[in-house]
Amino acid sequence: MQVSLEPRPRGFHLVTDEVTAGVPDLNRIRVGIAVVFMQHTSASLTLNENASPDVRRDFAAWFDRAVPDGADYFQHTLEGPDDMPAHIKASLTGSSLVLPVRDGRLALGTWQGIYLCEHRDRGGSRKLLVTAFGESGR
Amino acid sequence: MQVSLEPRPRGFHLVTDEVTAGVPDLNRIRVGIAVVFMQHTSASLTLNENASPDVRRDFAAWFDRAVPDGADYFQHTLEGPDDMPAHIKASLTGSSLVLPVRDGRLALGTWQGIYLCEHRDRGGSRKLLVTAFGESGR
Amino acid sequence: MQVSLEPRPRGFHLVTDEVTAGVPDLNRIRVGIAVVFMQHTSASLTLNENASPDVRRDFAAWFDRAVPDGADYFQHTLEGPDDMPAHIKASLTGSSLVLPVRDGRLALGTWQGIYLCEHRDRGGSRKLLVTAFGESGR
Repeated sequence: MQVSLEPRPRGFHLVTDEVTAGVPDLNRIRVGIAVVFMQHTSASLTLNENASPDVRRDFAAWFDRAVPDGADYFQHTLEGPDDMPAHIKASLTGSSLVLPVRDGRLALGTWQGIYLCEHRDRGGSRKLLVTAFGESGR
Repeated sequence: MQVSLEPRPRGFHLVTDEVTAGVPDLNRIRVGIAVVFMQHTSASLTLNENASPDVRRDFAAWFDRAVPDGADYFQHTLEGPDDMPAHIKASLTGSSLVLPVRDGRLALGTWQGIYLCEHRDRGGSRKLLVTAFGESGR
Repeated sequence: MQVSLEPRPRGFHLVTDEVTAGVPDLNRIRVGIAVVFMQHTSASLTLNENASPDVRRDFAAWFDRAVPDGADYFQHTLEGPDDMPAHIKASLTGSSLVLPVRDGRLALGTWQGIYLCEHRDRGGSRKLLVTAFGESGR
């Protein structure tokens, strides 16, 4: 199932509701998994704390320091100073989330939410492909 | 299947046996996968070298330098200087392991073991949710 | 299904074709997933930009700076100055790729390719284990 995330500014964004709204079929699965896959190389997905916006801001603070825009050792610079860091940040966080499904819902921990990690200044809309399966029988 | 890992100090810990003991159903799967999922945002899972305790100590040495406790650019500090670094380290390593199962066992490489990455000073017990499936017929 | 990747020098290498050639059964899956699993702890897998060789060179430039060979805080040094960094880089990128399959093919984004992340100076051949499943009916 394809889910299109609306464009967001560079940073880390909580998108749990947007993802689950795009996958109504989950409610037919009693025990299974959902694979949420990002079809881009300069944005990525991770699970983290779903309550405080400070946490998401601090993610950006750390990643922007760890992989600096326009570092002088990058050669792939034609697409802008945020491009090569975006690729590296995407691989540090990852393209897929593999989530347990129980009784028709994502079985996340209490504090877990899905983050869209948007690493480009103007990334635009991002496409996810969700594959869910397991035993039905609800 | 739920697996509770006993509380461990901050650091990287080999928990392969504790995880597999919690998933006896694996032995019914001939070809499949097991998804091991951490239901927390300040601890995580990774696969790495299962022999030398030095490797696990060096993991802590590197991660503690890469994401320093109490860095002055963190704003989410209410839960202690180890909290925000714990969230970032958790996303760098990841919440899920997706492991092949062959002939009733995890088909890990010779040197691969499952690490609990405990990023908090006092993280307490950690809950994993394991989902395994595949073709049976053993 | 086992796939042996031929030995490659340290660095990041595009291996999409080598992986898919090793998994002919994909063409029987209409909707499903493929799990590509690296059975080693000093090499890893990631998805990233499949066009420019500069991107792969810049990945090496960043990772070699972020996890320096022979750093003085590493104690696990018996296997050489590239060994402990290799373990850490492997956990930062990860051992598994979980990829959607649609209509008999990997449903990657236009710019996504599979990278072998070879972190050792002489890593030799690397073994992958691929598990693919889903609804057939093509």
